[in-house]
Amino acid sequence: MGATPPRSPLAPAAFPDLPEIGGVSFATAEAGVRYKGREDVMLASLAPGTAIAGTFTRSSTRSAAVLDCQAKIGKPSDAGAAIIVNSGNANAFTGRNGAEAVRATTQAVAQALNLPETRVFSSSTGVIGEPLPHDRITAKLDELAKALSPSAMDRAARAIMTTDTFPKGAAAEVEIDGQVIHIAGIAKGSGMIAPDMATMLVYIFTDAMIDQQELQNMVSVLNAATFNCITVDSDTSTSDTLLVAATGASGLRVTEQSVGFMEGLRNVMLNLAHQVVRDGEGATKFVEVSVTGALSDEDARTHALSIANSPLVKTAIAGEDPNWGRVVMAIGKSGAPADRDTLSIRFGDILVAREGWVSPDYNEDIAAAYMKQQELAIHVDLGMGGGTARVWTCDLTHGYIEINADYRS
Amino acid sequence: MGATPPRSPLAPAAFPDLPEIGGVSFATAEAGVRYKGREDVMLASLAPGTAIAGTFTRSSTRSAAVLDCQAKIGKPSDAGAAIIVNSGNANAFTGRNGAEAVRATTQAVAQALNLPETRVFSSSTGVIGEPLPHDRITAKLDELAKALSPSAMDRAARAIMTTDTFPKGAAAEVEIDGQVIHIAGIAKGSGMIAPDMATMLVYIFTDAMIDQQELQNMVSVLNAATFNCITVDSDTSTSDTLLVAATGASGLRVTEQSVGFMEGLRNVMLNLAHQVVRDGEGATKFVEVSVTGALSDEDARTHALSIANSPLVKTAIAGEDPNWGRVVMAIGKSGAPADRDTLSIRFGDILVAREGWVSPDYNEDIAAAYMKQQELAIHVDLGMGGGTARVWTCDLTHGYIEINADYRS
Repeated sequence: MGATPPRSPLAPAAFPDLPEIGGVSFATAEAGVRYKGREDVMLASLAPGTAIAGTFTRSSTRSAAVLDCQAKIGKPSDAGAAIIVNSGNANAFTGRNGAEAVRATTQAVAQALNLPETRVFSSSTGVIGEPLPHDRITAKLDELAKALSPSAMDRAARAIMTTDTFPKGAAAEVEIDGQVIHIAGIAKGSGMIAPDMATMLVYIFTDAMIDQQELQNMVSVLNAATFNCITVDSDTSTSDTLLVAATGASGLRVTEQSVGFMEGLRNVMLNLAHQVVRDGEGATKFVEVSVTGALSDEDARTHALSIANSPLVKTAIAGEDPNWGRVVMAIGKSGAPADRDTLSIRFGDILVAREGWVSPDYNEDIAAAYMKQQELAIHVDLGMGGGTARVWTCDLTHGYIEINADYRS
Repeated sequence: MGATPPRSPLAPAAFPDLPEIGGVSFATAEAGVRYKGREDVMLASLAPGTAIAGTFTRSSTRSAAVLDCQAKIGKPSDAGAAIIVNSGNANAFTGRNGAEAVRATTQAVAQALNLPETRVFSSSTGVIGEPLPHDRITAKLDELAKALSPSAMDRAARAIMTTDTFPKGAAAEVEIDGQVIHIAGIAKGSGMIAPDMATMLVYIFTDAMIDQQELQNMVSVLNAATFNCITVDSDTSTSDTLLVAATGASGLRVTEQSVGFMEGLRNVMLNLAHQVVRDGEGATKFVEVSVTGALSDEDARTHALSIANSPLVKTAIAGEDPNWGRVVMAIGKSGAPADRDTLSIRFGDILVAREGWVSPDYNEDIAAAYMKQQELAIHVDLGMGGGTARVWTCDLTHGYIEINADYRS
């Protein structure tokens, strides 16, 4: 491990005040899985009857913990539940050993908190290919169980960090009939993550009362427009996990039709997703890429991701170069339909190109001045149909190379 | 334009001796399209009856010259033919202006060489989005026509360079019944190409006698295993063009069944394809990625390209880090079927991982020593079926960022 990298220039000014969520308590500990002198394990305890939904990496080489979560998720239960997460070791590509480590850990948590093992979810993040020293985690369970507190969510956000340069949290309040539902979440991730590290992990908690299947539907729908719309380097972790837990402690029932709640949950998810991009390895620019006028939403997304993942577009942004030719290139290579002669490109409000050529009003100096901003928007209208998409990314800089090539782990 | 970048460390020791090809002559000139003090236009004149085949970029934003070539290619003719190429300006994304510039140029060449316009093929490489000053090219046509010589192919290779750090040429001889067929080709390209530049251009000539349709079949088949198997940065040019011209001057007829000729043509194409990778922007390592044991050749190719295009794999290679976890990640994200527990990974001859975990014999020091070599091989066996693929790429270094972000054009 090299020295701790400096805090991302795109980081929020401060970690937000996260509200306590009825029915959820947290504890953290120094288990020494890999790191010394910092907390590296977090335990979340969830009240009986909590509904838990999740989405996971689609990687075919996904980790043992992800496979275990996928096997357990989606079953309604009146029992309590728990989430145990360690940083420093991803327990990914560790053969049969991986599943055994997950079983040992979740069994121990179940015993410590008197829960059915099927209600204990786990994640691991860090080095790939090394066996997880799960005994170091289980040795801390009594201490963790005793320390559980509803106000320790900020420490949980720190305990799950690997090479993140800042802890990530977000919250929302939703008023229903004069009563308040709380939503709060934490996340970690910054690219597929620096030397040998891998994972985006997200945990969101609410005191709303939601049916298990309903919660899963909500999470799947909102995930498609939030976490599935960010890209740092196009590389997909073996361990990506998003868990959303609804304890029902507020006594307020919500459904997919609860517009206010959906908006609140979406805001928390989008906020955390943006923070992951803002902590992208080496990032100096936060970029929104929006595409309109495609033949379908799926085509629009294909174009948007082709632009957001293009090394040439991302290095041009790093160089503050309004290089719209590379945007044209990225549209051309995406594989989705495009018509050179109907497409237009804007950088912010600046019309750069239209009808297959540079705009007659385009002024390179004005565009170059715009590119110096830290937050950028690239908008492409294909002029073909009604399909739209919006994704978020960062630039590709020397910092990315330094983190991923220069420092040997 | 910044200073000329240093010659790639992966460049061949010297430009090869290219044989003269009966029925083909070349001329070059300083037209001043964009560069000063160097030749930037090349003209190739082809004998009557020459069969010409080609493959082109599949970009939906392809350039006017590519569209014109595609409209003209594939028609057998007894007339002579010509290829005119300029560097410095890609004539891409230049609206209606683009097609007019192509027409003006090809018409002037047809007139100067007394050819039907349908037999004049053109390419342009360089800046995107600026109108091509085609009058500077056509003003040189009389000079070019007079200078045509069978021995000027090396100068042609230099005239088509943009940010290439070395000219690219390759040749082969094929003996048939005691007589010799010659094949020689030139190429340019180094990534999608540095500031605002775009294009891989390849021109190959042979004195073999080949039917038009037969030649096209041969080129398409061989292209799939050569130029379509290289990637520098996953970005696709708007102008990629491969033209193969068979003059018949040797009097020796060959077909797809001519194993020796197919082998010779394949060698020239693969050699030139490898040279493009060796001139990849910022490249310090030449990497062969091979995949076996996939359910199909297509799946194998998907996995191979996922590895070869992964920024995390490419930065690990730049850092001489035997980071097999990132190879596992790239397989997992590719979208093609893979089974974590049957896959094995080799770096060169070193068995790194097998059966879902690091190999028990794996020694990190030995692998790290291997990664210091300039030529590397990554081999993945999926253990599922008979599908195979092989692709070639380079590493991702600070040099790539410098070329594409630091220097404004």
